[in-house]
Amino acid sequence: MNHPTEQALAVVSAFAEAWNRHDMAAFADLFAPDAEFVNVVGTWWKGKESIRSAHEFAHSSMFKHSRLNILSTEVRFPVEEIAIVRSRWSLEGHLGPDGAALPQRTGILVNVLRKSSGSWQIIDSQNTDIVEGVLSRPQ
Amino acid sequence: MNHPTEQALAVVSAFAEAWNRHDMAAFADLFAPDAEFVNVVGTWWKGKESIRSAHEFAHSSMFKHSRLNILSTEVRFPVEEIAIVRSRWSLEGHLGPDGAALPQRTGILVNVLRKSSGSWQIIDSQNTDIVEGVLSRPQ
Repeated sequence: MNHPTEQALAVVSAFAEAWNRHDMAAFADLFAPDAEFVNVVGTWWKGKESIRSAHEFAHSSMFKHSRLNILSTEVRFPVEEIAIVRSRWSLEGHLGPDGAALPQRTGILVNVLRKSSGSWQIIDSQNTDIVEGVLSRPQ
Repeated sequence: MNHPTEQALAVVSAFAEAWNRHDMAAFADLFAPDAEFVNVVGTWWKGKESIRSAHEFAHSSMFKHSRLNILSTEVRFPVEEIAIVRSRWSLEGHLGPDGAALPQRTGILVNVLRKSSGSWQIIDSQNTDIVEGVLSRPQ
């Protein structure tokens, strides 16, 4: 697996795999120490440790039995050492604050990866929920 | 204005300024030809022309009298030619589908910039609404 696109796709696969095992140590290991992450409600975490602890909390509760499916991913390399990796995803099996099952939802995750010492790490993530049938325009 | 951080901040200022003049040609000129943009509801546009026409439509209707305020911006340079620029913003004066005024909303915009031929262009944008009081965790 030496092709950069395959390597970038492998990071996204590992992201989903760690999520679905609810292994937040493995999840956090995909991120550079100074990575940043903005989740679907605009919460902004700075640093791998903050990303890990926030996701650990969520995976002990609302995301405990959730399953993240990567539906498709596109990869661009604006320069050789940087990849912009954008994935459409769906999430199922997550719970509301009251413990009730919530319906499947979908979103778009952009990960910026940097290659250093031969391996790709996530240096930045931002996530956005897809709201079906609502564009930035009148309905 | 030769410092890269200042140059990156100037792109964000120009983004808001073009938005507030509702000048979508100037807005689109901040983007590289192959730039991508994901808006707050997960609509994914590819290419400067798509970004321009979508925003032109929105600025002829719901965003016609809207005002975008950049509240704060942070800039990182993972490599010399790439900047990750994240801004908190508020929007006011926008309208709903029925033409009624909507309350102010806030969000987080990440722009990835690339320096080419001495100037910085946006190569990727993703936007996320801030939902106050709701984290990815039980309430």
